[in-house]
Amino acid sequence: MNTNNKPWILTAKCPSQLGTVDAATRYMANAKNYINEIHSFDDKESQTFFIRVEFSPQDPAFDQDKLQLDFGQHAKKFEMEWQLRSPQCRPKVAILVSKYDHCLNDLLYRHRTGQLDIDIPVIISNHGDLRELAQWHGIDFHHLPITKATKVAQEADIVSLLAKYKIELVVLARYMQILTPAMCQHLDGWAINIHHSLLPGFKGAKPYHQAWDKGVKFVGATAHYVTNDLDEGPIIAQGVHSVGHELYPADLIAKGQDIERVTLFNAVRYHVEMRVFINGSRTVVFGD
Amino acid sequence: MNTNNKPWILTAKCPSQLGTVDAATRYMANAKNYINEIHSFDDKESQTFFIRVEFSPQDPAFDQDKLQLDFGQHAKKFEMEWQLRSPQCRPKVAILVSKYDHCLNDLLYRHRTGQLDIDIPVIISNHGDLRELAQWHGIDFHHLPITKATKVAQEADIVSLLAKYKIELVVLARYMQILTPAMCQHLDGWAINIHHSLLPGFKGAKPYHQAWDKGVKFVGATAHYVTNDLDEGPIIAQGVHSVGHELYPADLIAKGQDIERVTLFNAVRYHVEMRVFINGSRTVVFGD
Amino acid sequence: MNTNNKPWILTAKCPSQLGTVDAATRYMANAKNYINEIHSFDDKESQTFFIRVEFSPQDPAFDQDKLQLDFGQHAKKFEMEWQLRSPQCRPKVAILVSKYDHCLNDLLYRHRTGQLDIDIPVIISNHGDLRELAQWHGIDFHHLPITKATKVAQEADIVSLLAKYKIELVVLARYMQILTPAMCQHLDGWAINIHHSLLPGFKGAKPYHQAWDKGVKFVGATAHYVTNDLDEGPIIAQGVHSVGHELYPADLIAKGQDIERVTLFNAVRYHVEMRVFINGSRTVVFGD
Amino acid sequence: MNTNNKPWILTAKCPSQLGTVDAATRYMANAKNYINEIHSFDDKESQTFFIRVEFSPQDPAFDQDKLQLDFGQHAKKFEMEWQLRSPQCRPKVAILVSKYDHCLNDLLYRHRTGQLDIDIPVIISNHGDLRELAQWHGIDFHHLPITKATKVAQEADIVSLLAKYKIELVVLARYMQILTPAMCQHLDGWAINIHHSLLPGFKGAKPYHQAWDKGVKFVGATAHYVTNDLDEGPIIAQGVHSVGHELYPADLIAKGQDIERVTLFNAVRYHVEMRVFINGSRTVVFGD
Repeated sequence: MNTNNKPWILTAKCPSQLGTVDAATRYMANAKNYINEIHSFDDKESQTFFIRVEFSPQDPAFDQDKLQLDFGQHAKKFEMEWQLRSPQCRPKVAILVSKYDHCLNDLLYRHRTGQLDIDIPVIISNHGDLRELAQWHGIDFHHLPITKATKVAQEADIVSLLAKYKIELVVLARYMQILTPAMCQHLDGWAINIHHSLLPGFKGAKPYHQAWDKGVKFVGATAHYVTNDLDEGPIIAQGVHSVGHELYPADLIAKGQDIERVTLFNAVRYHVEMRVFINGSRTVVFGD
Repeated sequence: MNTNNKPWILTAKCPSQLGTVDAATRYMANAKNYINEIHSFDDKESQTFFIRVEFSPQDPAFDQDKLQLDFGQHAKKFEMEWQLRSPQCRPKVAILVSKYDHCLNDLLYRHRTGQLDIDIPVIISNHGDLRELAQWHGIDFHHLPITKATKVAQEADIVSLLAKYKIELVVLARYMQILTPAMCQHLDGWAINIHHSLLPGFKGAKPYHQAWDKGVKFVGATAHYVTNDLDEGPIIAQGVHSVGHELYPADLIAKGQDIERVTLFNAVRYHVEMRVFINGSRTVVFGD
Repeated sequence: MNTNNKPWILTAKCPSQLGTVDAATRYMANAKNYINEIHSFDDKESQTFFIRVEFSPQDPAFDQDKLQLDFGQHAKKFEMEWQLRSPQCRPKVAILVSKYDHCLNDLLYRHRTGQLDIDIPVIISNHGDLRELAQWHGIDFHHLPITKATKVAQEADIVSLLAKYKIELVVLARYMQILTPAMCQHLDGWAINIHHSLLPGFKGAKPYHQAWDKGVKFVGATAHYVTNDLDEGPIIAQGVHSVGHELYPADLIAKGQDIERVTLFNAVRYHVEMRVFINGSRTVVFGD
Repeated sequence: MNTNNKPWILTAKCPSQLGTVDAATRYMANAKNYINEIHSFDDKESQTFFIRVEFSPQDPAFDQDKLQLDFGQHAKKFEMEWQLRSPQCRPKVAILVSKYDHCLNDLLYRHRTGQLDIDIPVIISNHGDLRELAQWHGIDFHHLPITKATKVAQEADIVSLLAKYKIELVVLARYMQILTPAMCQHLDGWAINIHHSLLPGFKGAKPYHQAWDKGVKFVGATAHYVTNDLDEGPIIAQGVHSVGHELYPADLIAKGQDIERVTLFNAVRYHVEMRVFINGSRTVVFGD
């Protein structure tokens, strides 16, 4: 059997009920799709079922449209929200940045080496500093400066660019602007932010200073979906690092960058590999 | 639906082929067994499929014998080795120790508080030191001293005790004796040993001294199944701890005890929860 | 040179100034005290200097009173607060508990095996459940029940017991009572509490439920000195554990116990080894 | 007092004896050098003392040559090997690479952002692939191809380049060539290599394949000084990552790159900050 190529991915979510796993797997077996990997979770609290299947079609007559149609009818019975992705699909990702480049540099490196199987057609920034880095990677760079007066207009420009580039995921890689509620709403569910603290601890500005002030022994970073509620969106990934009394806020900032970039990378990768489901104010993440 | 009680567990292993997941889940759906949790893995290298299902019967007429019979026939088609465990089942575990008590104390504590859902009818030791600890927990203690001359006889006594107490799992909790090949063979697949190093590094005696001598920055512990090959059985769990230049071998030994006991506990728990499959010289572990 | 026995310990704290390290080490060299280990920290923010010295006297005529007198005069010039401890000294520790026994069990185990070089003359509880465990370890157990009406009187009884047993450190090992401000003040600086969250996150009741509700990917525990400000005292040690979506609050509670007990043990050990200094609302901890 | 600028660093190593700490600190106090940070270790096994002092001169008439002379005479009495570094000094580092760029990319990024306070005048490779990356960072790139026949000549060319660029530290950032004994000897004590396993486990080729084959639950990386003994030089830093059964060798290689680059960075930083001492076949590392 040919199971070594990049697989297809099917994800689904529905109310908990008898036969949910079977709903997905019986279809796969009948359609001669070899299951490479399967994850599911049945949340007792929200009474919701989540499943993710990686599969390799074995039937030479395999047809995506037919699957869409057949499985779609099947899924309706279970009230499933579902998605299918072909191996050829590479999500289009836009990165928003300001001046810090540690997260951007990391994402670009992993993009360049294939660890992140995505397209990055555009980088948008409210500063011009990172233009050269973007250009070395051959990526369009748009400098959209911002002032209090131009905030709404600038966000409108961003929205236009996202549409123009057909963006499917927005990554706020230390984009140091508070988005308007309207912008948050526009990005709901398809934008990931990195915050430099173990949320919900140390929300808001200068979290490393707050952490130092409290004398904590661990600092961290949080990657979460953007929602209306600042720093409160569903958490996708977190990272931690132990710290001692000898580190000042500036040291925490420096050390924290390594956690931030890995945490953001993990969240982006999980998202583009369709491993993340929003479950109310929380997430389900099928890690690897 | 009643899915909150302790669930039933079904595990299976078979050659990789189309429809393996479906083989388990379709049966479950047809039999009205609600799947609480499912894990599977398809090993591309050994071409072997592994699955573990936690389920709660919804059919008031649920009958274990019928399931055994029905699923057994179904499983035969896929050449499945499979096991079923009822919620009432509590595996009988024997613990072998010498003088170190950190692992024993930990297992007994977790047994007493219900973290380990097992019966421990007997503790066997080549020394008498830990009798009092065993007795405080109300567990039979057998002191079977050993000399070079009596090794085979002593092991025969152990084998008798394991049979008498109907033991299903043997835990070598820092039992400081090298078992004979015959004894290893007897215990193959149902005995777990804890070794105080990150195997395969630092096999044999005094691993913390070896680690110190090499100046390593991490030490660890390894829980593995007992096989004929000393310290080479399939690894179930490992734990690590960072160490610095200021620690001498005695310090490593002291610090290592915390890793050993947690690592052994994890391995025992994974085993008794049927989360571990032997996959050649390796294991598949469906963690939680 | 004889440097292998348990060493003497000198700690000191004073305003930052030129010559602070020399103030301690020159005295040591002149007095023929061999320094086994030395740690110091000069806090640029609070402008405070901290030092801890482990030493082994080499002079056969070594005399503790003379050191007290000589170093005391020397230290006065630097406005040092300082402490000296002889190798014979074993701090007297009282443990307060309610019904949870995971921290108590751990502390008693480490006490019994010598990892914690302390005396535990008494265990005090507002419940009677853990009497048997205390008694097996040969430790006095006092059951002091508490109601809203008797809280002040019960705390007075605790204070009396602490005095009677000449207690030097109080450990709140999951003692599930909120102390009165008067009691907090009485214990200021010599009582350690374990809180089951990564403070300052999830203060107050049911922190694991709070953590689950927020969907965090790490939970933790915090050991801190008791102060008037509930859950706000200087943090001595913290521990973390990664968690996934599949864990419910009850699972977090169970997993958290392993972090709590290790974190509390570390804090107690650091304290009794004189490795901890209070530095305003923060601590300086000279780990090993 | 002015203690905020980049400090001077003094390190020393000598046979254990009474007064070693005082030897350094009394001099500092007398010379009006404010000690910002001090670390020392007295190795009971090798009977060797190590010390590292960060200090800020307070005397306007501070003179480096005078310190060299005065402290030098002082140090002679203790048979100290010692080194002094001024805040202006930036060590010159050469990086050797082949085709893998994850370590190189990381070092260059940290160099560019100032996390690594070094000069990198030259990158040398046996392949031409990474020329563009070097050039974007404005660093000379020398492509020195190698065959069995030309190995000795190629190494001679490397030696010439190291001399020409006045290199003080050589970093083998996944340089996939086994150095000749003569080259190892030439680099003894001033070259750091990254090996992609937790040495001494999995020495030699394809360590991730070895690790996978053994079914270990942790993989890691080791940064060590180059010595004649392949993969056996004193270990400076190690990193680990937990792995599960679902990862194949190719996955371990991919995941391992993150550990490799952080581990190598840590080792290089420790070295250039004069935090590392060779102690026989081991190291003393004064971390931060």
